[in-house]
Amino acid sequence: MPSTVHITVWNEFLQEKTDEPVRKLYPDGMHVTIANHLNAQDGITAGTATLADPEHGLTDEVLVKTDVLIWWGHRAHHEVNDEIVERVASGVRGGMGLIVLHSAHFSKPFVHLMGTSCRMDHWDENGKWEKLWLNNPTHPIVEGIKNGTVIPETEMYSEPFDVPQPDELILTSSFESGEVFRSGCVWNRGKGKVFYFRPGHETYPIFYDPNVMRVITNACRWLASGDDQHRTPNIEL
Amino acid sequence: MPSTVHITVWNEFLQEKTDEPVRKLYPDGMHVTIANHLNAQDGITAGTATLADPEHGLTDEVLVKTDVLIWWGHRAHHEVNDEIVERVASGVRGGMGLIVLHSAHFSKPFVHLMGTSCRMDHWDENGKWEKLWLNNPTHPIVEGIKNGTVIPETEMYSEPFDVPQPDELILTSSFESGEVFRSGCVWNRGKGKVFYFRPGHETYPIFYDPNVMRVITNACRWLASGDDQHRTPNIEL
Amino acid sequence: MPSTVHITVWNEFLQEKTDEPVRKLYPDGMHVTIANHLNAQDGITAGTATLADPEHGLTDEVLVKTDVLIWWGHRAHHEVNDEIVERVASGVRGGMGLIVLHSAHFSKPFVHLMGTSCRMDHWDENGKWEKLWLNNPTHPIVEGIKNGTVIPETEMYSEPFDVPQPDELILTSSFESGEVFRSGCVWNRGKGKVFYFRPGHETYPIFYDPNVMRVITNACRWLASGDDQHRTPNIEL
Amino acid sequence: MPSTVHITVWNEFLQEKTDEPVRKLYPDGMHVTIANHLNAQDGITAGTATLADPEHGLTDEVLVKTDVLIWWGHRAHHEVNDEIVERVASGVRGGMGLIVLHSAHFSKPFVHLMGTSCRMDHWDENGKWEKLWLNNPTHPIVEGIKNGTVIPETEMYSEPFDVPQPDELILTSSFESGEVFRSGCVWNRGKGKVFYFRPGHETYPIFYDPNVMRVITNACRWLASGDDQHRTPNIEL
Repeated sequence: MPSTVHITVWNEFLQEKTDEPVRKLYPDGMHVTIANHLNAQDGITAGTATLADPEHGLTDEVLVKTDVLIWWGHRAHHEVNDEIVERVASGVRGGMGLIVLHSAHFSKPFVHLMGTSCRMDHWDENGKWEKLWLNNPTHPIVEGIKNGTVIPETEMYSEPFDVPQPDELILTSSFESGEVFRSGCVWNRGKGKVFYFRPGHETYPIFYDPNVMRVITNACRWLASGDDQHRTPNIEL
Repeated sequence: MPSTVHITVWNEFLQEKTDEPVRKLYPDGMHVTIANHLNAQDGITAGTATLADPEHGLTDEVLVKTDVLIWWGHRAHHEVNDEIVERVASGVRGGMGLIVLHSAHFSKPFVHLMGTSCRMDHWDENGKWEKLWLNNPTHPIVEGIKNGTVIPETEMYSEPFDVPQPDELILTSSFESGEVFRSGCVWNRGKGKVFYFRPGHETYPIFYDPNVMRVITNACRWLASGDDQHRTPNIEL
Repeated sequence: MPSTVHITVWNEFLQEKTDEPVRKLYPDGMHVTIANHLNAQDGITAGTATLADPEHGLTDEVLVKTDVLIWWGHRAHHEVNDEIVERVASGVRGGMGLIVLHSAHFSKPFVHLMGTSCRMDHWDENGKWEKLWLNNPTHPIVEGIKNGTVIPETEMYSEPFDVPQPDELILTSSFESGEVFRSGCVWNRGKGKVFYFRPGHETYPIFYDPNVMRVITNACRWLASGDDQHRTPNIEL
Repeated sequence: MPSTVHITVWNEFLQEKTDEPVRKLYPDGMHVTIANHLNAQDGITAGTATLADPEHGLTDEVLVKTDVLIWWGHRAHHEVNDEIVERVASGVRGGMGLIVLHSAHFSKPFVHLMGTSCRMDHWDENGKWEKLWLNNPTHPIVEGIKNGTVIPETEMYSEPFDVPQPDELILTSSFESGEVFRSGCVWNRGKGKVFYFRPGHETYPIFYDPNVMRVITNACRWLASGDDQHRTPNIEL
């Protein structure tokens, strides 16, 4: 693992400005909430980037220094420039980690790296509970997470989730309304890894939940491990 | 697929004799209930075998003619002779299908073929509902099964389930008490396939449920397909 | 399986017109050679489409009737219209099979469906032998193929091959010059399947080789199986 | 990773005593050659155990302190006590790593953990070259290993190799006589991992080859990583 793990948290950063309940929860944007949490951890330093920044904040200079990129998007997937999407996908194939949060299952970089539709059967913004069950309790990503951990208020997502079979299935969620979803999945892509983590969404205090933030922090460390020796300078295989 | 699929349904056949609620549900034994259902289907012929039979009813002659073996066990896993276990495992590696039902996750043939402990986290004989969610809605095993199909009364099983990552994950169950379980899984072993199917158990009318029986019937046909050309006479690779 | 399997063979169809050794081998184009072979098989009917056709010959009307699409490309991957690529990928996710031949590892539809770079380490158009080894001798795709089958003259490809781990690894090639390559791989994508088959290329009589054509014919039948019940009319999940 | 990785090298230790060419190469036994190499590495301490020792040298006390067990067997697989096999398998499921060398593909612990026959198609003790190709060049197990690394004299093994599809395929070998073999494979079993590494055998100086020993050393470190937090005291899941 690099002695310091460098994270970039990307957010479309729209609903925090236009949607009052979201603004109240995340007045500076979800990216800032997540980055602040990460910057308080040992050995992690986190910056941010947003849709409105030039090149969406994801210049070559930024990506080359990013060990793990965290992605949140919801309303504006289609506004992300295809050239930047290719740059991000290429960065992952060159060794960068990518953490995809909740509604970013439909983000261009994730869909690009999966090669499937990434659709789900149905969803419900019902604010009921979600429970996280550990398919693989020994995985570093769930270190410190108890089997059956409850997230009190959440949006429900339901299987089938049209993704390639994960290389590692780590977490499955159940929901108060009865559905299930593969909510913690890893895929290897070139020299990099993609971690999809489901809990959401923007109208609930998901990114203040200590268990959610523990998983994200663990994932940052795990996705960055081995990065030192294998990362390619030109971010291509 | 062979023009007629030959099934053998194996049952330890103990609780139906000693346990009144089980006897009432399955007076002739679960194996007979399952075999009767299969014998009513086009192109399937099913026989039975039990623990008390000589060689547990699983002689070389029987196994060589069996395209798919269905296994139910619960109380007497340890009474199954190791030589017969090796014969069954060898038959699977030679091309025979194996369907493992509910508590047979701890049966000797299944544990032998998995190489893991096959333990789960916890369970509860609570008689509450189970819902079956389709991870892969296109798989022939779930042909005709609706996403979210309800089994009204069931025993709950909870992840983690200590098995190798399935070659195909087809079904995940949610339970009224909140847990989840990978309840429809396929593993390739040599020339044969193993299908684990969770719903149970013996105190509920699981094997009268039309959806449960549809999955089992589909699985019999799918596990037998291709068997014609690939089955090895000496039931060994 | 549909009673008749409908195949469309796509070819960029360029080198057969400009490159004398290729023209000699495939005067009407590789697509016609392959389609002629398939049309001589029971229960298969094959049409063709090329880069120069309007919409590359891959209109919605054609794709909806295509059970399995075979793809050859080499020099003009970049000339394939992105809209058609999305239409093909969407067709696969909706249940159409896709067979990707040799240098089409770099075709837009394959790269799109994999999500990786699909690069290899090195290659050599040396005209030496290739041997096909069966990792899974029971797979219907290699029915009738002997372990170690020789293709006398071939272009060599070398691992690493930057693709996601296949859902099924069926064939690995060795080469006279010492390298290896995963030459028969299956990935599930939505309701469809992708089969990559390596042997090539255009300056050798690969598509007159009876073993190569047997694998392609087997793959057409296998990729089309189950298509009846699961294909979605709007070719989307 | 534990600050010091504790390795136990197990050897049936028979042919070094009875077979002159083997004795000459490995006068103290292959286990001692391997252990000496490992003890010269930073942060690794290696002990040995053999078939003739009480409990084959694999008492509970030894296994509990072993982060990674290395296994060599060839002639006397059947002489290994089934109780010790179960103890080793249970140790792996509890978090211990297991490295299985060459002819130990037929050892009882490996066959037990795989659930397949672990047979191969054919082999030839021909003393010709083997080349190691990297399917996954980014894996820590092949850190420092060049693609196409040559082992000058080796015994050839040929696919098909009847094992479950590996969770990670890292290395494939080609042989001078034309065959291929999946020669570096990882399977997850409970909390532990199994790494099969093919090069051999006892009549060649395999365990003096710097590349072979580099892979084994890398594997010791990688299989032990994460062991601190996840190892269960009672070596059971």
